[in-house]
Amino acid sequence: MKDLKKLFYPESIAIVGATESKLKWGSFVTTNILDGGFKGPVYPIAQGRETVYGIKAYRTVSDVPGKIDLVYIATPASTVMGILRECVEKDIHNVVIISSGFSEVGGEGKKIEDEMADFAVKNGINVVGPNTMGMSNLNWFLHGTGAHPRPKPGGISIIAQSGNVGNQIMLWAELEGFGINKFVGSGNEAVLKVEDYLAYFNDDDDTTVILMYLEGVDDGRKFLDIAKNASLKKPVIALKAGRTAGGSRAAASHTGAMAGSFQIFESVMRQTGIMMAMNPTELLELSAAFDCYPLPKGNRVGIVTLGGGWGVITADECEERGLVLPPLPDEIRSKLDKKLPPFWSRANPVDMVGQPDVELFKETVELMVSSDAFDAIIVLGLVGASRFGIRPMQAANRLGYIPDEEIRTIEAGSSFFEKLFLDAILTMMNKYEKPIYPVSLASFPNDDIMYTKEGSRYKIIVYKTPEMAVLCLSKQQLYSKYLRLRWDE
Amino acid sequence: MKDLKKLFYPESIAIVGATESKLKWGSFVTTNILDGGFKGPVYPIAQGRETVYGIKAYRTVSDVPGKIDLVYIATPASTVMGILRECVEKDIHNVVIISSGFSEVGGEGKKIEDEMADFAVKNGINVVGPNTMGMSNLNWFLHGTGAHPRPKPGGISIIAQSGNVGNQIMLWAELEGFGINKFVGSGNEAVLKVEDYLAYFNDDDDTTVILMYLEGVDDGRKFLDIAKNASLKKPVIALKAGRTAGGSRAAASHTGAMAGSFQIFESVMRQTGIMMAMNPTELLELSAAFDCYPLPKGNRVGIVTLGGGWGVITADECEERGLVLPPLPDEIRSKLDKKLPPFWSRANPVDMVGQPDVELFKETVELMVSSDAFDAIIVLGLVGASRFGIRPMQAANRLGYIPDEEIRTIEAGSSFFEKLFLDAILTMMNKYEKPIYPVSLASFPNDDIMYTKEGSRYKIIVYKTPEMAVLCLSKQQLYSKYLRLRWDE
Repeated sequence: MKDLKKLFYPESIAIVGATESKLKWGSFVTTNILDGGFKGPVYPIAQGRETVYGIKAYRTVSDVPGKIDLVYIATPASTVMGILRECVEKDIHNVVIISSGFSEVGGEGKKIEDEMADFAVKNGINVVGPNTMGMSNLNWFLHGTGAHPRPKPGGISIIAQSGNVGNQIMLWAELEGFGINKFVGSGNEAVLKVEDYLAYFNDDDDTTVILMYLEGVDDGRKFLDIAKNASLKKPVIALKAGRTAGGSRAAASHTGAMAGSFQIFESVMRQTGIMMAMNPTELLELSAAFDCYPLPKGNRVGIVTLGGGWGVITADECEERGLVLPPLPDEIRSKLDKKLPPFWSRANPVDMVGQPDVELFKETVELMVSSDAFDAIIVLGLVGASRFGIRPMQAANRLGYIPDEEIRTIEAGSSFFEKLFLDAILTMMNKYEKPIYPVSLASFPNDDIMYTKEGSRYKIIVYKTPEMAVLCLSKQQLYSKYLRLRWDE
Repeated sequence: MKDLKKLFYPESIAIVGATESKLKWGSFVTTNILDGGFKGPVYPIAQGRETVYGIKAYRTVSDVPGKIDLVYIATPASTVMGILRECVEKDIHNVVIISSGFSEVGGEGKKIEDEMADFAVKNGINVVGPNTMGMSNLNWFLHGTGAHPRPKPGGISIIAQSGNVGNQIMLWAELEGFGINKFVGSGNEAVLKVEDYLAYFNDDDDTTVILMYLEGVDDGRKFLDIAKNASLKKPVIALKAGRTAGGSRAAASHTGAMAGSFQIFESVMRQTGIMMAMNPTELLELSAAFDCYPLPKGNRVGIVTLGGGWGVITADECEERGLVLPPLPDEIRSKLDKKLPPFWSRANPVDMVGQPDVELFKETVELMVSSDAFDAIIVLGLVGASRFGIRPMQAANRLGYIPDEEIRTIEAGSSFFEKLFLDAILTMMNKYEKPIYPVSLASFPNDDIMYTKEGSRYKIIVYKTPEMAVLCLSKQQLYSKYLRLRWDE
């Protein structure tokens, strides 16, 4: 395995082509690294400049007095060989080549790329790219991409065979509150390939989940071996683009990837234990679910719902995705008979028939999660209900029949009770080691989606729709089953 | 067909069981009607009260001096027969029974419901419910449900066999900016059934699209006949819950609906031209797409993308949903050769290789939409790009290298150019009568999703993901094909 430690955890960085010209990649990357708060020294390499963004600049890499762990290159393709030679002289082994104009343009570009790759391999230089959006390590305060997403640091590490797709997923993570560990856009993969990053992230203790956007893999055999090993240690979630003839043609013109048959690829993936997503949204959501929830030990789901219709919808989703809804055990039924109105469902899904009583919900969820009959619980419509549910009071307030002060108390109280409920769910997840997925059926644009607290092994994601909660649960169950089978081998 | 005009367009309303007790349905509905700004007289019917929410109250319906078009009832099931008798005396033909305690609780409740239904039918009373969330007509300023969603008035009318599901869809429509026309929770359907609402909405000129949440249909033959007729006149989008054994059991315990075989239901639906959604999110998004976009005349899609990866992803989605990506016509290729960098894709998807140039995008989209080769266009990643794309400038500003005033101009300019682009798309849709779906790959929580302007026949929805744009386009194409086949018969 290639040693990529210093690539992802550099103590010092040089940026060749650093510039204050606002629309150039040499500026995008430099401002990102500076604005991102990298802790070590940053050396702009820019000819004819004293400083770049206020930092002392050097004419060449060789001119830099200190040690350099990592070099970003944003100058034309024709300059790259010269820079790599300087890197060898200065004992630099990690380079990110942002520049384009290599194999993706064919002809002369292809020749330069081949020469560069040969030289890098011979001299033990790790090269990301060329033609890459860059590389970041958020736990290391290193934001080294042309785009500037700002997700919070976390456990998910991203390998993207499209920098745009990868960075937009990073932005989505920022907006959803999902934590990201590392990001690499693999670019043309002249030296380091997707399987090298996969092997490294698998070995990397800071990474809890590996997210991959794939268009094509050169060495299928090697990828397969690494993937099989990786998924035993931590979840790997992948989106394979170029599944169809049209997508495959588009991929060939995009990254030059030969997509091959998706059917073959998919069956290979099934052997590796890699979980497949069908689109970028699923890719991120699945990764986050694996990062947050304990794995279910089986496929038996209990549903607790505030309204009957949502129970029906979620039951359909579960069964269509290979999960089952066992009957409600008698002892739970008789306990709930004493607490719920006589016309409650008396079955799984447990329909709370509109009683938005947090204590009752907590007791019901605990009855379900503590039962041997269920491997996972989905809770529908209590979280978020307060925001929508108190609107009649707010209307009464506008009509002058509830004082402003009282409505303020009601508003604060209802969101307080929701937090209490999420708190109780988190405690139960830690106690019973089973996932409990809350779904808010009334989520507002700026609501917090993530919830956790000090000392909890797990985190809660408040899902906006039952279908996404069920999708995530079903893939967690599939992965859990895969691990059981592999361990039994 | 039953005459439901006065039910949905009443000039005056009485609310039996109106109360200021904040946690009662009689309060929820009253505050909703008052807060919603209903234009005609509202008569609270409440014993022992002079006023309810400041409005003169009456002891009984008979005591009201004026004419009453519509009565809401929120008093116990046992009181309903008496109230209906008063309605007959006062020549009232439209009643919404919010109250529960009817057939859904069985036994005595079932008896009361049967008696009530017989009486209503004999006396020509339209009854919504019982056990319903209520009924609204947003264009009539009538918000007559227990929950208080506030979507803006528009073209989509909703029939929901679950009040909760229906009202949460209304809330989602509010948050997305989709316009809703009418809403009815069909409740126990003792008198008026889902097919009665379907027939009425089909005849109703204010309704452009019909959205249905279904758990079960009593009279399949009648439903089929009405549905076949309805979908010829306007799009009907339905979600059928209870598709699986587990979902079907849950539906039986929820609304008592006998779900029957989903396979049979689905093949029947295919004959009717009703478009099926698989979950509530799809149900709303599809309805909105049909409300906003012209129908494509075929299945040939042209894609214009800012980044290659998204083109690959979208091409896959298209082909997996029965849409095709024809090759790029030579004349478009040679025209774009003159405008785009040499390494552009030269194929469909047209990869703009990161050039966020609004003029170039407009020209490219017009080349595509005006071509006979394409029936619909998807544009990826320009809209929204400004918000994410200007972050490097904002970082330079924070570093002190772009003045505050200049960054303000850049921010305003970029959103201005996005509006210009949406404007151009709208103009092209009206000119070429083809749908153009923009997808923002960097949408922020409070971004506007809807865009239109005075005089336009169509509206734009800015999609957050390619998969939702493709799903909507594929169903519009399916419906368009259905209509062509039916007209050819």
